[in-house]
Amino acid sequence: MALLVIGSLAFDDIETPSGRVERVLGGSATYFACAASYYTPVQLVGAIGYDFPDQHLAFLEARGVDISAVERMKDTPTFYWSGRYGDDLNEAQTLAVQLNTLEKFQPRVPEQFRDSKYVFLANDSPKNQLAVLDQLRAPELVLCDTRDFWIKDHRDSVIDVIRRSHGVVLNEGEARMLAQERNLVSAGRKIIELGARIVIIKKGEYGAFLITLTDRFAIPAYPVERVEDPTGAGDSFAGGLMGSLAQQNGSSVTQLKAAMVCGTVTASFCVEAFSVEAFRNLDRQALDQRYQEFTRFISL
Amino acid sequence: MALLVIGSLAFDDIETPSGRVERVLGGSATYFACAASYYTPVQLVGAIGYDFPDQHLAFLEARGVDISAVERMKDTPTFYWSGRYGDDLNEAQTLAVQLNTLEKFQPRVPEQFRDSKYVFLANDSPKNQLAVLDQLRAPELVLCDTRDFWIKDHRDSVIDVIRRSHGVVLNEGEARMLAQERNLVSAGRKIIELGARIVIIKKGEYGAFLITLTDRFAIPAYPVERVEDPTGAGDSFAGGLMGSLAQQNGSSVTQLKAAMVCGTVTASFCVEAFSVEAFRNLDRQALDQRYQEFTRFISL
Repeated sequence: MALLVIGSLAFDDIETPSGRVERVLGGSATYFACAASYYTPVQLVGAIGYDFPDQHLAFLEARGVDISAVERMKDTPTFYWSGRYGDDLNEAQTLAVQLNTLEKFQPRVPEQFRDSKYVFLANDSPKNQLAVLDQLRAPELVLCDTRDFWIKDHRDSVIDVIRRSHGVVLNEGEARMLAQERNLVSAGRKIIELGARIVIIKKGEYGAFLITLTDRFAIPAYPVERVEDPTGAGDSFAGGLMGSLAQQNGSSVTQLKAAMVCGTVTASFCVEAFSVEAFRNLDRQALDQRYQEFTRFISL
Repeated sequence: MALLVIGSLAFDDIETPSGRVERVLGGSATYFACAASYYTPVQLVGAIGYDFPDQHLAFLEARGVDISAVERMKDTPTFYWSGRYGDDLNEAQTLAVQLNTLEKFQPRVPEQFRDSKYVFLANDSPKNQLAVLDQLRAPELVLCDTRDFWIKDHRDSVIDVIRRSHGVVLNEGEARMLAQERNLVSAGRKIIELGARIVIIKKGEYGAFLITLTDRFAIPAYPVERVEDPTGAGDSFAGGLMGSLAQQNGSSVTQLKAAMVCGTVTASFCVEAFSVEAFRNLDRQALDQRYQEFTRFISL
């Protein structure tokens, strides 16, 4: 099954204890699409500026990503983010943001993608996310992401998006903020009560937690020894997760669990190198091998 | 197999977002012994002051703890700790400490306990921990705990204790400090290189991580919805863990994994009430039921 993602493509400047890179390929949809592409064909809706090099598009295409709906804005530079990680690699400090393309972007799902059954709404304004939902004709599984600032200022709209999707993937800080609950288990339950059918809470180096109407499941993160750059870990997790669900063509609890392992493993490769570098040489065999290793790591 | 623990008995004043209690029963050996007692007979070596009520001893005895080697110091009050937890229940702020009994305590393992095969050295000075090790005749599995201040000022002695034990149970901050490594996986590996055969790193609400010479294993915490009081969670985890190992009479990787589940489950009950209150009514059946539930919670 093809998987549609709507999100950002970006230039990132990133500083971590391991080094510093400038104007590298970033963006939520980029990371998501790279990760998901190991499991299923990916369709990408997003915007780039006049300064976005063709080689980045070629890279995505080579990874099996359909970039025909990537919109190039000829009068705008590409979305730019600059961030720094200290010793606590779980949290980035944003140094600069230039919205550029993101400011003007109004996601339009082209005709050929409107019947997509698996859809991921990467972080965006709830307004844009709702606009995407209006354009879908036959979604079987839509998961959405969000961010702290949307929850803070547009909580009701965020909840609307979650209700109209099938579930939400968010990090622990966002889950606490959305649910207005410190305890993560209660927070997850409360988000279910708000109308989500599937809630997946990402805890960075501490793993991830699934809660549905009937089940709960938790996994630790893969034990990466050398995290070069945590940027994109959450989007890679979501990409591996949704890619696996699209490949399995289902979202039963058993399928969700296996998909969370795929997400974990994909994200573990992502953080071992800056930007999307890890995805340049990674093949499916290495992913599957780590899948097996991780399964042993969490099995009694 | 009987299990010997050497550690503290205490009075605690505790404040958490759920409430406040004064002069309640606490101490590392107390929590450890309560937790372990569900799995195996426990022998306790520790000190109490003139003010320690007999009812606390009677409670421990009723839980199957051999208190014949609990030393009452007639001229000293009992060790006292006062702490407060904010919204982040992973970290206590110490408000006051009166060492009292702990200051004078020199652990003496009585003849009848010197052949114990399973031994836990709860947090104490490395000097005292080494003195205990000198008194043991036939230990098959000794695990030790330690604290940040011992690592800070007596790192070499802490490493000595770990080398002469079979392994160490410590929290993530202590592991990072001991290994001088931010990454927990690297930290665990480095502690193995320092001479431990078994390293178990506790991550509070994020679970625990096992590393041995040949294996690695991780589990999340049990998803407790209402944490009343995190005090003693780490010692209860260690108690459930060692109690299970003593009951299984072995420390293979498979046995260690099952024991980590016992530790997790025992600790999950502990934090649902202040002090050791949870252990007053808890029975083995409820523990086993949660063991099964937790096993499902972490199974693919």
